[in-house]
Amino acid sequence: MNYFEDFRVGMRAEIGSHTFTADEIKAFAREFDPQPFHLDEEAAARSHFGALIASGWHTAALCLRHVVEERHRRQAELRRRGEPVAKTGPSPGLRDLKWPKPVYVGDAISFATEIVELRDIARRPDVGLRVARNTGTNQRGELVYTVLSSTYIERHKPLVT
Amino acid sequence: MNYFEDFRVGMRAEIGSHTFTADEIKAFAREFDPQPFHLDEEAAARSHFGALIASGWHTAALCLRHVVEERHRRQAELRRRGEPVAKTGPSPGLRDLKWPKPVYVGDAISFATEIVELRDIARRPDVGLRVARNTGTNQRGELVYTVLSSTYIERHKPLVT
Repeated sequence: MNYFEDFRVGMRAEIGSHTFTADEIKAFAREFDPQPFHLDEEAAARSHFGALIASGWHTAALCLRHVVEERHRRQAELRRRGEPVAKTGPSPGLRDLKWPKPVYVGDAISFATEIVELRDIARRPDVGLRVARNTGTNQRGELVYTVLSSTYIERHKPLVT
Repeated sequence: MNYFEDFRVGMRAEIGSHTFTADEIKAFAREFDPQPFHLDEEAAARSHFGALIASGWHTAALCLRHVVEERHRRQAELRRRGEPVAKTGPSPGLRDLKWPKPVYVGDAISFATEIVELRDIARRPDVGLRVARNTGTNQRGELVYTVLSSTYIERHKPLVT
């Protein structure tokens, strides 16, 4: 799984999990999302969330880290085997970020990525566009984060049209 | 500018700017986006970006901070004047995140928000959906970040249909 031609729609990888602590929730919020229900237990208890919750962007950023680390692991494995490593990126963008449920202190969020679309790019025969749905799911099996992420991936052989 | 009825499509606010330092670019990347061109000047010089660049999610998170701070300033002003403060949030999601240009060390990114759509919600007569385009623009006037952000906003009077 490396060049654009090696990917298939439906390929899915579990890419790790993260358990959110109150301290890191507050630290992220102080820097990037200073809303009371991300910063302070008492204010959060009075909010409609009922308790401290992580910024949605904190969850998104941690999902990103797991995606990047998974790619690095995969590339390191290819290098160990002496195989070429296809170029990836940059991302032309993301679609449909959603946070269907809040993430509370102590929630263990499992991240996964699944390929939902593989698209030829007529004006760029050297790459293809891979669209993946990246998700975060809590320990109760509830989806807490989802996004469609697009990335250009090098082709092994240029597209002939 | 407070209740859903008070907003108009086209309303725009400049909400502050941020100048990116190498240290904070690396710190964010270590925690959330550990790619070589976000972490190390020499590796970045060899990448197709040519120099250290901020994670797109770092720019997104800082845009979020400016959006939140702007809302807090607006709400504080209403409270000072003894006026009611409409409830906002949570966000049903974001669409179309894009990073058209990289953010380099020393770039001063100006953030802005502009209302692009105001939608009645038939099943929720107490709120309306406000869709805003949030953007970051560098000191050369180039767009470096854009996203469509949706938020539910309390109505002053329930929608009658």
